[in-house]
Amino acid sequence: MTQEFRYQQLEAWLLQGIEEQRWRQGERLPSIRTLCREHKLSKATVQHALQRLEVQGQVEARPKAGYFVSLQAPAVNRPVSRARIEAPRPVTVSELLQDIMRRSAAFDLLPQHSPGDLPPGIVALNRAIGRSLRRQSGQDFQYYDEPAGNVALREQLALHMARRGWPCEPDALCITSGCQHALFLALMACCTRGDVVAVESPGFYGVMQIIEQLGLQVVEVPASLETGMDIDALEDVLQRWKVRACVVSPAFATPGGALMPESSKRRLLALAESYDLAVIEDDIYADTALGAVPDPLKALDRDQRVILCSSFSKCLSRDLRIGWVSGARWHARILHLKLVTQLSSSQFVQRGLAEFMADGSFTAHLRRLRTELRTQRDRLLQLLNDWPGSIRVSKPQGGLAVWVELPSGEDTLALYAKALQQQVVITPGPLFSASGQFRNCMRISFAHPWNPLREQALSRLAALCALSP
Amino acid sequence: MTQEFRYQQLEAWLLQGIEEQRWRQGERLPSIRTLCREHKLSKATVQHALQRLEVQGQVEARPKAGYFVSLQAPAVNRPVSRARIEAPRPVTVSELLQDIMRRSAAFDLLPQHSPGDLPPGIVALNRAIGRSLRRQSGQDFQYYDEPAGNVALREQLALHMARRGWPCEPDALCITSGCQHALFLALMACCTRGDVVAVESPGFYGVMQIIEQLGLQVVEVPASLETGMDIDALEDVLQRWKVRACVVSPAFATPGGALMPESSKRRLLALAESYDLAVIEDDIYADTALGAVPDPLKALDRDQRVILCSSFSKCLSRDLRIGWVSGARWHARILHLKLVTQLSSSQFVQRGLAEFMADGSFTAHLRRLRTELRTQRDRLLQLLNDWPGSIRVSKPQGGLAVWVELPSGEDTLALYAKALQQQVVITPGPLFSASGQFRNCMRISFAHPWNPLREQALSRLAALCALSP
Repeated sequence: MTQEFRYQQLEAWLLQGIEEQRWRQGERLPSIRTLCREHKLSKATVQHALQRLEVQGQVEARPKAGYFVSLQAPAVNRPVSRARIEAPRPVTVSELLQDIMRRSAAFDLLPQHSPGDLPPGIVALNRAIGRSLRRQSGQDFQYYDEPAGNVALREQLALHMARRGWPCEPDALCITSGCQHALFLALMACCTRGDVVAVESPGFYGVMQIIEQLGLQVVEVPASLETGMDIDALEDVLQRWKVRACVVSPAFATPGGALMPESSKRRLLALAESYDLAVIEDDIYADTALGAVPDPLKALDRDQRVILCSSFSKCLSRDLRIGWVSGARWHARILHLKLVTQLSSSQFVQRGLAEFMADGSFTAHLRRLRTELRTQRDRLLQLLNDWPGSIRVSKPQGGLAVWVELPSGEDTLALYAKALQQQVVITPGPLFSASGQFRNCMRISFAHPWNPLREQALSRLAALCALSP
Repeated sequence: MTQEFRYQQLEAWLLQGIEEQRWRQGERLPSIRTLCREHKLSKATVQHALQRLEVQGQVEARPKAGYFVSLQAPAVNRPVSRARIEAPRPVTVSELLQDIMRRSAAFDLLPQHSPGDLPPGIVALNRAIGRSLRRQSGQDFQYYDEPAGNVALREQLALHMARRGWPCEPDALCITSGCQHALFLALMACCTRGDVVAVESPGFYGVMQIIEQLGLQVVEVPASLETGMDIDALEDVLQRWKVRACVVSPAFATPGGALMPESSKRRLLALAESYDLAVIEDDIYADTALGAVPDPLKALDRDQRVILCSSFSKCLSRDLRIGWVSGARWHARILHLKLVTQLSSSQFVQRGLAEFMADGSFTAHLRRLRTELRTQRDRLLQLLNDWPGSIRVSKPQGGLAVWVELPSGEDTLALYAKALQQQVVITPGPLFSASGQFRNCMRISFAHPWNPLREQALSRLAALCALSP
């Protein structure tokens, strides 16, 4: 039994009284003074209990007259609590895809809120945000932040990018609600309805969803699991269609963790100039590098046509909802779209994060994270190595997942549903394609620490695949 | 002079040494042990200083070798700090409008971060968010929230709406990044490019900006300062054009604070059924009611065609960035658009807010806020009463501002620029119209407490108007 606070005991006693009609609807409750005396409670405790009942609609406060039992019972039903895992109801493909998107964005094979302690980096981050909250004063809360975001945070991000070979000004950055928001603003800024956008295939499903919702057209460019987008194939595409923008992830592209070589980056930018493309760089995985952190494509951008998008979600916390975008020649329009779609971001969160970066805690966190991710990737590759049958597995140097190719004929959409019934979450291949390719492939994550339960989950998955040895 | 922490003193000493080339580029700094001994500091303090220099790019850590002076000086320039008030640079009308939008959203005649104490409601809110941060455990930070938002917060919001006459289920609500985001999702969900949207005139500029960015067309329906949108005029509009959606603020519409009577609400909904309209209800000012809080239009919606949008920005804090939307027949599409545009919202902020609501602190805060707003409105009306000349002033029963009509011929766009040079911010009338109407009108806010400085600002404004007595 959980321990109850004294206001909770009083709240329960009053609620019982109302249910048993000790006080009827519209009747006055005992006065605060009476409740204090009879229950040996302070005035603050009694008021706290009464306020809680007021919020629930059980009682009403009438100025200078006291608290009365409400005339109507509250009309809201409590929702049934929902388990994290439930079998999907594939009414339409799009609904199934939404279901998968929601579950898989956590990158957890075995979703569960592990008890345990927070990592030290997150403890430091939370303390910094807490300090930022306590430093609010006066009427601070009455002001919206400027659309570009907090200057101190943009300064820290500019320093962070400078260390990766791209010296940038804080004013070249706009803070967003995560990378998805950054990608949305980028595509909305540089494309109009009907425009064609080139994407990696396999590639990030979030981008394909944005393209769909903005009424754009997609063309899939084959991508290798080692070196990313095939630049020859891109050139072929550019010759055949008028392409407006190209979305790429040079650093550890999802799903396979490909790393684009410098030569490909240079060819990509040359093509972008020839064909007048906007290049949208999804840089979200860069800081999960297991070895050296690659320079961004943006560092080579001499022509103001690379829009860099990123966030803290993969390398720090998915709950911050802080990302950033550097919009090149489209930056002014992106700032305006940020204002129009959302006005501004939370200053107290940004200030805390800026302090966390300024005092070196972020650097220390990244150092620990990369060591852990290397261990977790190695363990996953070792476990997959023991699977029977001929499967192909990517060997990423960064990112949070590997791409597994099962023998052709295997169906990972069916596998997703079967695995889910056993509490195991994979991301099926077709999600990474606008045209339903990669049916025999899946993404498996190493974002979470391996423990016996997760290793068993992986074994159950192997059994479900029924691979012939 | 501000007091420095010991790590800051060491940081400054090391930085000076680097600048004076006591240690040259690429050279090793004294060891941590040496620095501890010579400066009589703890190891943690020395490490803190070194980490800060590492973040700034001044030094580099090499595993097991120590800290070295970086080979390159950091490439980032610190931005020049910008004053809050500066004369606008009217390159294009749209840029001027953006400038005004940014400044006026704070609703402050005399923008300044007042020192002073936070109001008790904000202190309680910040404590609740702090507790929510400290309660994070395990891998909580690794998971995205579901797109609809935290269930506990939606339960509290459902109770809050139920008390206003609209019993709703938590699943009918989707949490957003403020009301602007809610309005954006609503319009994106129920309209496609080229569709016509009816708005109040004068009406909220944020809505007109969304309409522009989504490639929709606007038709302005005259609105009275007392009773809101003119329903006869709306009917006339509906007969002449195919209108897809209508955006209204029945509760204390900005700029004048109009309150739509029940009879108009019923007629509006009847028209919406006849002409198959989506009705987007901007409910953001409801909780600033100086008297009774009106029921939402949504409470009368029998046909699932009213999309309710609101947020905590006007009645609690502009820095939370938490709003909500109830999307009626478009709700599933809105949830999907939330996912596609932003993925999810911060759980720790939502949990803290839910607790703040559940323990009655929000109700207590609203009670105090309304009393203060009444005082502030009364004082503004009293001060405006002393202005010379014939001006017309709205008498709002809620909201945060009054609408002032100067004699025709006055130009509030010019007044805006002149006032800004004297640190005074008004919102000029043309911002509330897509066609530049209301040139002789302006919105003046009573959101902030009056003090001698703000009262002097209002006097300066009166002088700038140069009204003849």
